Amino acid sequence: MSERRRSRSRGRAARIAERSNVQTEIVAFIERKVPFYEMAPVETLELIENNADLILEEIGIEFRDDPEAIEIWKNAGASVEGERVRFERGMLREIIKTNAPSEFIQHARNKNRTIRIAKDTAVLAPAYGPPFVRNLDEGRRYASIEDFRNFVKLTYLSPSLHHSGGTVCEPVDLPVNKRHFDMVYSHLKYSDKPFMGSVTSGERAQDTVDMAKVVFGTDFVENNTCIISLINVNSPMTFDDTMLAALKVYAKNFQGTVISPFILSGAMSPVSIVGTCTQILAEAMAGMAFAQLVRPGAPVIFGTFSSSISMQSGAPTFGTPEPSKVLYLCAALARRLNVPFRSGGGLCASKIPDAQAAYESANTLQTAMLAGVNFMLHTAGWLEGGLVMGYEKFVMDTDQAAMIQEFLSGVDTSENGQALDAIREVGPGNHYLGCEHTQRNFESAFYRSTIADNNSFEQWEADGSLRASQRANKLWRQMLDDYQAPEFDPMVDQELLAFIEKRKASFPDSNV
Amino acid sequence: MSERRRSRSRGRAARIAERSNVQTEIVAFIERKVPFYEMAPVETLELIENNADLILEEIGIEFRDDPEAIEIWKNAGASVEGERVRFERGMLREIIKTNAPSEFIQHARNKNRTIRIAKDTAVLAPAYGPPFVRNLDEGRRYASIEDFRNFVKLTYLSPSLHHSGGTVCEPVDLPVNKRHFDMVYSHLKYSDKPFMGSVTSGERAQDTVDMAKVVFGTDFVENNTCIISLINVNSPMTFDDTMLAALKVYAKNFQGTVISPFILSGAMSPVSIVGTCTQILAEAMAGMAFAQLVRPGAPVIFGTFSSSISMQSGAPTFGTPEPSKVLYLCAALARRLNVPFRSGGGLCASKIPDAQAAYESANTLQTAMLAGVNFMLHTAGWLEGGLVMGYEKFVMDTDQAAMIQEFLSGVDTSENGQALDAIREVGPGNHYLGCEHTQRNFESAFYRSTIADNNSFEQWEADGSLRASQRANKLWRQMLDDYQAPEFDPMVDQELLAFIEKRKASFPDSNV
Repeated sequence: MSERRRSRSRGRAARIAERSNVQTEIVAFIERKVPFYEMAPVETLELIENNADLILEEIGIEFRDDPEAIEIWKNAGASVEGERVRFERGMLREIIKTNAPSEFIQHARNKNRTIRIAKDTAVLAPAYGPPFVRNLDEGRRYASIEDFRNFVKLTYLSPSLHHSGGTVCEPVDLPVNKRHFDMVYSHLKYSDKPFMGSVTSGERAQDTVDMAKVVFGTDFVENNTCIISLINVNSPMTFDDTMLAALKVYAKNFQGTVISPFILSGAMSPVSIVGTCTQILAEAMAGMAFAQLVRPGAPVIFGTFSSSISMQSGAPTFGTPEPSKVLYLCAALARRLNVPFRSGGGLCASKIPDAQAAYESANTLQTAMLAGVNFMLHTAGWLEGGLVMGYEKFVMDTDQAAMIQEFLSGVDTSENGQALDAIREVGPGNHYLGCEHTQRNFESAFYRSTIADNNSFEQWEADGSLRASQRANKLWRQMLDDYQAPEFDPMVDQELLAFIEKRKASFPDSNV
Repeated sequence: MSERRRSRSRGRAARIAERSNVQTEIVAFIERKVPFYEMAPVETLELIENNADLILEEIGIEFRDDPEAIEIWKNAGASVEGERVRFERGMLREIIKTNAPSEFIQHARNKNRTIRIAKDTAVLAPAYGPPFVRNLDEGRRYASIEDFRNFVKLTYLSPSLHHSGGTVCEPVDLPVNKRHFDMVYSHLKYSDKPFMGSVTSGERAQDTVDMAKVVFGTDFVENNTCIISLINVNSPMTFDDTMLAALKVYAKNFQGTVISPFILSGAMSPVSIVGTCTQILAEAMAGMAFAQLVRPGAPVIFGTFSSSISMQSGAPTFGTPEPSKVLYLCAALARRLNVPFRSGGGLCASKIPDAQAAYESANTLQTAMLAGVNFMLHTAGWLEGGLVMGYEKFVMDTDQAAMIQEFLSGVDTSENGQALDAIREVGPGNHYLGCEHTQRNFESAFYRSTIADNNSFEQWEADGSLRASQRANKLWRQMLDDYQAPEFDPMVDQELLAFIEKRKASFPDSNV
C-alpha cells in the first residue's frame, strides 16, 4: 500500500517536505502498529450500550420531512409515530452487525492513493466547513474558491494528509446552489487523493456521484466506493430531510457516509461524559442502520464531533478533558460495533495560530491518535471553533499529523532497533554521535519537524526571532509557489467541465 | 487527602483561580482513576529487561571518583574493575525488589499538602534548572533569587501543582556555593508544599537535610521523608562523584532520590527506542540499587529525562514521537520494577511561548499523563530546552496541568453521570441548556481554562485581539500582586535564618 514518491515530477516544496520527513515513508494511509488507549472498563461501555438501547426504545429518533425514510423504518419493523421512530432493544445493532462492512476501500483516481478505512488504519483529512480563512498577511476574511483550490493543493502536497477532504473552506464567492460543482472539480483536478462529496441537498449529492462517474467510469462507481461524505445528525436525536436526502443518494450508490452526531455537550447533549456517549451511540446507530436499510453493505463510518461549551457564555471550547473522554469512549464503542470510527483532529477555539490553538489542537490530535480514529477529519487548518481555515495553522497541523504517523508506526524490536552493538561500541562516559549504529540510522532515526526551530537562542535571534506562525507563513507560500498539478487525462477533464457547464446552465443561480 | 482551600486567608488571584477551576477539588496530589496506556507488549518489555541485564553484566556502569561507592559495590558482591562495576544478571533487580518501597510519603510542612508518590498517584512540580527567565515585558535575561521566589510563589498559588520543585530557576546573582541556602529557604518560607533539595555537592545536600530538621524537627526527618532530590546520571552509564555524594547523603538520611538518566538520544544513548530504553533501565536500576545499599528502604523514584537531538545540528528536540515512545516504555518498565516513575512535563525547544512551545509541551504532557508518570518534573514554565523559565509559559502550563488532573479523575458512571433524566426531559430536536440536569451540574461539568479565550471573534477583537501569552502575562502579574505567604512559625523562621547565617559565614563565597 505504500508509495515511493516520484520526486522528479513534483515541485521543490514537495521535495523539501520529503527531505524533511525523510524517515517517514510516503504512504496512502497509516497502518496502525500500536494498541488503542482503552480508557474505560467493559462495564462502562456495556452501561452506555444498554442506556442507548433504552432511549432508542423509549424516546426514539425523529426523521423529519422525509416520508420515504419513515416508510423505510416501517418496513424494517420499527415503531413509527408521526416522525418519531422507536426501535426494539438491539434492533439497530443487529442491522449494523449483519450488514455494515467492518472496513472498506475508498478509491482515489491515483490508485497509489487509494485508502483502506478500517480498525487498524488511520486516514487523515484537512478541516471541513470554515466560511472564513486567515493568514498572517491578510488577517481574517471570507473564503473564496481560490482559497479552496489553495487548500486542495496544500493538502495534495502534504504527505501526512491522506485525504483531500470535502468543504476545505466555503467558497462564498460562488452561488450556494452551484459551488459544489467547483468544489468537487477542484478535488478531482488539483489533487489525486480521495475526496468527500456535497451533502447540502440530494441533488448535489447526485451531482457528486455523477462527476465521480465521469472520472472513475460509471460501472466502477456503481460497485466501488469513490466518495465518502459527511452526514451530520441534528443532535439531539433528529435527522433532517437535507441530510437524509444526501445519505440516501450516497448509500444507494454504494458510496460511503460518515454518520456524525454534532455535539456541543451542554447544548446538544447532557453535561456528562456517559450521557453524551449514550446519545452519540444512539444517534450514530440510527444513521448507520438507516444506510444499511437503503442499501445493505453500504460503507458507513461511526462519526463523532463532540466538544463542550462554556457554561458561562455558551461558546464552544476545545482541547479540554471532557471531550477527550467522550472520544476515547466512543472509539471503543465503535470497535464493539465493528465499524470504522471518525472524529476531529486539530480542534481549537483560538482565533489565531498561537499557543492556545496549539495546546488545544495537540490535546485533540493526541487523543484521536490514541483512541484509534480511523478517519480523522479536521486534522489541519482549523481555527476559531471551525469558523476559520488558517493557512499557517494548516502547515503547523500537518507537521503534527506527520508525527502521528510516526508514532503509530510502533516500536522497532529488530536487532538494529535493540542497538546492543552501539551500546557495546560506545561504553560508559562516551557519546553516540559518531558510532557506527548512529551513522547507519541517523537519517531515519528521529522525526524532523517542518515548523519547529530547534536552534540555539542566538541562532534563532539571528534568524529574526520568528514565531512558529511566521515560519509557517513562509512554508505554505513556498509550497503554493512550487505546486505542480498531478497528471489528469485532458479528455476526462474536458468531459467533466462539459458536464459541469451543462448542469450549471440548467438552473438559475441561488444563494439557498 | 483533599483539602478545601480556605479562601479567607488568601489573595484575590487564588480566589480567581479557585473560581475558574471550581470543578476541580483542591487536592494535595492526583489519585489516578484511569488506566495506563500500555504501548508495547510484554515481550518488548522483557526484551529490554534482558538486554539491560546483558549490558550490566558485560559492560557495567562506572562510578567515578568515589572510593566509598566502589567499596559499597564490592561488599554487595558486584564485580569491580577500577571504577567499572559489573552486575550478575538479575542482581540489581533483586536488590530493588527486596528493598525499595513501591510507594512513599513525602511530608510537607503543611500536612494537608503531604503527598503520596505511588503507582496510582501523580504529583506535578514546576520546571527545574533554567539559568534564564523570560517574560513579555523584559524578554530573556539571567534569573535572580527574586525570580526564584516569584516562581515559588506562583507554584504555591497554582492548585494544579502539588510540589514546589527544586531549582525552579538558577539564582545566578548569588554565589554558587551558597545559593542553595536561599533556594531551600524560599521553598520553606514562601510555600508550604513539599520541595526538592540541593544536589550540587554532598555538603549542600547535608545543609538541605539540616534545614529540613529545623522546620520538621530532627527526629521526624530521621524517620520520615521530607525532601526528594534529583540525581542525574551522566549517561551513558556513568555516575560522577558529585551526584553520588548527594545521593549518599539523602539516602543515609532516609530522604528520597529521583535517579534520572539524562538522555538526549543520539548523543547519550543510541538512536533507537529499544536501545535507549535498555540503557535507561540499566542506569536507573544501578542508581536505585545503590541507594538501597546505602540505606535499605530509602525512597527512590525511577527517573527519566529523555529526548532526541536533531541529527543535523545536534540541538535537542522535544514533543516528537520518539521520546513519547521511550516514555511509554520506561513507565511500564518502572511498574514492572514496582517503583514510582518520574518524567518531564511541558518540555519544548521553542524560545518563546508560541505555538511551537504549546504543541511540543502538550505532546509531552499528554504522554506523561497517559504513560502514568507519578512525579512529573518540568510540568510548568519550561522553554528553550530547559535554559529558560518562562513566566507566561508557566501559567499556560499550569492550565494544562489542571486539565490533566481533571482527565485522570476518570468517568462518572453514577445515575447523575448517566443523565438519562436529561435525555428524557429534553427529547429530540431541543436543547439541554436549561434542563434540570444541566442546572444541577453546570458549575462542575466542564473544565474552565484560565488562559483560553473562547469568546466570539468580535468579542476577542474588542478585548484587544490578544494572544494567549498576553493573557498569561496579565494572569501571573495579578497572581504575584495578590500573593499572601502561608503561615510560618516566626520562631522556626528565625532559627532557620540563624542557621543559614552561621553556615554562610563559615566559608568564603565562591562561584564553583
